[in-house]
Amino acid sequence: MSLDGLGIVETHSFTFADTGQDFILKSGVKLAPVTLAYETYGELNQEKSNAILIYHALTGDAHAAGFHEGDKKPGWWDKMIGPGKGFDTNKYFVICANVIGSCQGSTGPVSINPKTDKAYGLSFPVVTIEDMVVAQKKLIDHLGIKKLLCSAGGSMGGLLAQKWAVMYPETTASTILIACNTRHTAQQIALHEVARQAIMADPDWQKGDYYEKSIPARGLAVSRMIGHITYMSETSMEEKFGRKLIGKEKVGYDFSHDFEVESYLKYRSDSFVQRFDANSYLYLSKALDYFDLAEDGELTDVFSKATCSFLVISYTSDWLYPPYQSKQMVKALKANDLDVSAILIDSSYGHDAFLVEVEKQSKLISHFLNRIEKENP
Amino acid sequence: MSLDGLGIVETHSFTFADTGQDFILKSGVKLAPVTLAYETYGELNQEKSNAILIYHALTGDAHAAGFHEGDKKPGWWDKMIGPGKGFDTNKYFVICANVIGSCQGSTGPVSINPKTDKAYGLSFPVVTIEDMVVAQKKLIDHLGIKKLLCSAGGSMGGLLAQKWAVMYPETTASTILIACNTRHTAQQIALHEVARQAIMADPDWQKGDYYEKSIPARGLAVSRMIGHITYMSETSMEEKFGRKLIGKEKVGYDFSHDFEVESYLKYRSDSFVQRFDANSYLYLSKALDYFDLAEDGELTDVFSKATCSFLVISYTSDWLYPPYQSKQMVKALKANDLDVSAILIDSSYGHDAFLVEVEKQSKLISHFLNRIEKENP
Repeated sequence: MSLDGLGIVETHSFTFADTGQDFILKSGVKLAPVTLAYETYGELNQEKSNAILIYHALTGDAHAAGFHEGDKKPGWWDKMIGPGKGFDTNKYFVICANVIGSCQGSTGPVSINPKTDKAYGLSFPVVTIEDMVVAQKKLIDHLGIKKLLCSAGGSMGGLLAQKWAVMYPETTASTILIACNTRHTAQQIALHEVARQAIMADPDWQKGDYYEKSIPARGLAVSRMIGHITYMSETSMEEKFGRKLIGKEKVGYDFSHDFEVESYLKYRSDSFVQRFDANSYLYLSKALDYFDLAEDGELTDVFSKATCSFLVISYTSDWLYPPYQSKQMVKALKANDLDVSAILIDSSYGHDAFLVEVEKQSKLISHFLNRIEKENP
Repeated sequence: MSLDGLGIVETHSFTFADTGQDFILKSGVKLAPVTLAYETYGELNQEKSNAILIYHALTGDAHAAGFHEGDKKPGWWDKMIGPGKGFDTNKYFVICANVIGSCQGSTGPVSINPKTDKAYGLSFPVVTIEDMVVAQKKLIDHLGIKKLLCSAGGSMGGLLAQKWAVMYPETTASTILIACNTRHTAQQIALHEVARQAIMADPDWQKGDYYEKSIPARGLAVSRMIGHITYMSETSMEEKFGRKLIGKEKVGYDFSHDFEVESYLKYRSDSFVQRFDANSYLYLSKALDYFDLAEDGELTDVFSKATCSFLVISYTSDWLYPPYQSKQMVKALKANDLDVSAILIDSSYGHDAFLVEVEKQSKLISHFLNRIEKENP
């Protein structure tokens, strides 16, 4: 039993709906073929009862933990997933799949449309959180898993986890929801709309038909900068950057960068532009904005379909998914007499806290999973 | 004595530094000529002791109150300025000038550079809040006013008011600071930097040389959308828009607008693009980001130069200039044994509250001004 990290991991690929199996999206549009990129960590036990499905956030991918051959950086939640970690791969079989609509190996606007032999671009159908969940259910079926021990995610991942809990209630013993809400609010929609407008304002975007040409790098960079501001808190930005100047004695009285926070935004958005597809940003942000678990109905009614245990974690300084929204979720869950543990963690890291507050989060999660395991022998 | 509005008002113009009078900016660069657009409301009394100088916010102008001939909308603070209003023009002589660097009649990047006979564009020197204040001091001198009864502003206007209070302490009896802070924080700089990058990413911007060509409308629109989100609160956006759809039964599953909040942002930014200059947005946002009243020193030391009475107003849901920042300001003012009235007003309107919460604000201001008048006969 190792307590080291996961070492080298590989991304796998699973394609369904390429021939017989139709995949009808919520919009009514048929999508085929559909491929999911996914990774697994740890061993599936003989009873296939130790599987945990992790969902990633907006710009995440299937590579949640371990290292890809030659990489210096591990997966996006490596601190949480591995031997002896919060999601302990000595005990659990952890799965993470890239959502459809994304650009990290799963079918999305960058994929080749078999009808045209060209990238879909904007002819790719709009997908929803529900569609992403349906696709991942097919992967779990393919892996022969009848019931998950846990279905878990932060941010967008938390939306998928909620949807799973009400769409497939008998197929998970528990759900972990971190830094998320049950419906995108006006402010969240507004922030995404600005990001979309920034991309579409870039002439290189060309109505989404930019593959094999110039990518809309400037627009996508602006989108990502907005994102970064919303992922941090006012306090964490102040603590990290304040008014620190970048390699200057005094301000330059021009429009080059003066402050560290400016060059940080540039650095982060430049590297993002290299790894992420602008159209995917449009599709995924739209899927988030469309998300309303109750679909204009009563949240309490929707959660009446759920049967599993819940762990709900929120962070005090998260202004993108403020704690009061988790509270509403918890209230609706409890109104259905469900087993709910709700924790508000004090943190200055804003929405990023779910990626940063590893120690507190790990303890909560491993205790919760231990209990779920005992209650579901 | 009228209790009606101000009726028709006119913008005046004052030019200095066109021949003899050099105007040296904080950067060391000389700027000439310098023109200020300004308006006045009410009558200056014989002693010239009833003058109030109002400073506008980032994209504001000299037209603070009353109507321009033919206009259907009054000036930006008409609810606060007029006969019987918070700034009562039956008693006071109210002045408002457009800041330098702006594009509403005062000298800025859109002005003609006399050396080239073309618009300055990016050859316009970077101006600071201090430079704006120095320019307005020249206007007050020109009007023959030795001492203001009050110097007042919200948002960016509050920064000018602070600077005036410490640069020209003997020239105002009082200062009103609304929804502002003493130094721009990392988050504020970051938000402005994204706005600047959005403008500069627009190919039509052409390094600022777009006059008489196409304006960088798309970039400027994106900038303004970001602004609007920061001016409202999460609550006020939710109350005003929520997830309301725009003329649709259901979402469209495409990238046209679905939600009211999206079309609101478009409507507001489209109209903004018609009235505001993109380069001015760059210059003014930079001036704000450079603002640090203490200039890396102690705030208490800077305020030791001030002598007037202060009224400091902040709003609970203002996340752009959060109340804790006003509190720091008040603490430093009080440490100097200055006369300070500080009020935190409960409001859901976010930063916009200083334009919206007319009733509460008017009461506070008229009481404060009454007292100042009595104490400064």
